[in-house]
Amino acid sequence: MSSSSTAHGRGDRAVKPPIRDALVAAAFRLFLERGYEQTTVDDIVALAGVGRRSFFRYFPSKEDVVFPDHERCLADMTDFLSASGDGDDPVRTVCDAARLVVRMYAENPAFSVQRYRLTKQVPGLRAYELSVVWRYERALAGYLRTRFAGLRDGTLRADVVAAAVVAAHNNALRSWLRSDATGDAEAAVDHALRHVQAAFGDVPVPPAGEDPEDVVVVVSRRGAPLWRVVQELEAALGRD
Amino acid sequence: MSSSSTAHGRGDRAVKPPIRDALVAAAFRLFLERGYEQTTVDDIVALAGVGRRSFFRYFPSKEDVVFPDHERCLADMTDFLSASGDGDDPVRTVCDAARLVVRMYAENPAFSVQRYRLTKQVPGLRAYELSVVWRYERALAGYLRTRFAGLRDGTLRADVVAAAVVAAHNNALRSWLRSDATGDAEAAVDHALRHVQAAFGDVPVPPAGEDPEDVVVVVSRRGAPLWRVVQELEAALGRD
Repeated sequence: MSSSSTAHGRGDRAVKPPIRDALVAAAFRLFLERGYEQTTVDDIVALAGVGRRSFFRYFPSKEDVVFPDHERCLADMTDFLSASGDGDDPVRTVCDAARLVVRMYAENPAFSVQRYRLTKQVPGLRAYELSVVWRYERALAGYLRTRFAGLRDGTLRADVVAAAVVAAHNNALRSWLRSDATGDAEAAVDHALRHVQAAFGDVPVPPAGEDPEDVVVVVSRRGAPLWRVVQELEAALGRD
Repeated sequence: MSSSSTAHGRGDRAVKPPIRDALVAAAFRLFLERGYEQTTVDDIVALAGVGRRSFFRYFPSKEDVVFPDHERCLADMTDFLSASGDGDDPVRTVCDAARLVVRMYAENPAFSVQRYRLTKQVPGLRAYELSVVWRYERALAGYLRTRFAGLRDGTLRADVVAAAVVAAHNNALRSWLRSDATGDAEAAVDHALRHVQAAFGDVPVPPAGEDPEDVVVVVSRRGAPLWRVVQELEAALGRD
């Protein structure tokens, strides 16, 4: 047991926080106290009680300490997509992959809300976040391009679906962050992703007892907007 | 007639290029010769024959000279959206707004291709471009949020449609840029945007002579993927 954990009076949970976590905690304390721009890497390492080289072993730059888990999450997403089978519905699979991101935010609501506020205030962090979002979107689009290979306009469909998934995910995630993490982030994202699955994805497995060969008939005026027809179709199919 | 235009042997087209255009031309010549990172603002103003303060009168930073027309295009897009009427189909309107961007690229194909290659090579420019794309997307989403106000999940729908429009536009634009500006960029974007309009927008006015009350019937197995049903629906409606 280290003296520092005892000094915190938490001998029963005496695991000294890893250096990486200590750096993130120190950085956020300083960012909130002084502002992001006014905090240097030297300030962060002084508060965390480690050397500069330790900082750069974990984070390439000061921006990276703000988003400490995205690299892991991107790797998890890539692994998840690689592990999916040819029988899996592609749109459902990318929606499930996107859920890995909201889960990461929901694991640590207070930290996520702090970071959201910080990111809104600092243009450099906003730019960094856009580049992270872009990497998620390209991971999803890359998977869909493979699955849609051979389809007419396959890369176009892949890019559009990936963008729609990211937009729906982020709409729900940002609402949750703006609300100070009130309510269930994952349920909000699920609801948002159902819109995308309704527009582009498969139909859910029918409830037990229903004849899977049940037939739905839609009659439409030719002049009706397609989205209205799809809405009726969804209603007829018992989707929300 | 200025001596400089005569010196270029183009006395018959003797309009001295505005300083702004001269700065862009000088910057791109140096970026291509030496690389973006190796070119300083001092190098650019020296080649253009103007002072440093002239550069910063037109461009806040070296990155901005790479994208000299996006501010104007963003302003045009905002104006276009503001001028649209309540009777205009919202999805069609944002598709038309997105066409302003491809038109800007198509006005100067050689410059657009040069810039595309440069942007791919320089991470800082890639980040800058993402922030520009984000601003277009927010302009479209902001308009749609107003138009969809009161709809259930209005902001979600707005964000998803805006992202889909931007993704479709960029898929077509990038294909055209990768092909060294072969073919018709605007037609390629039109084709891509039709996918988005088919999924979210209105149906085109039927050809003359056709009964607008013509009825289309679609019969679907309940287990069929919705996108397959929509594909059949499009075929039945005579859409490509």
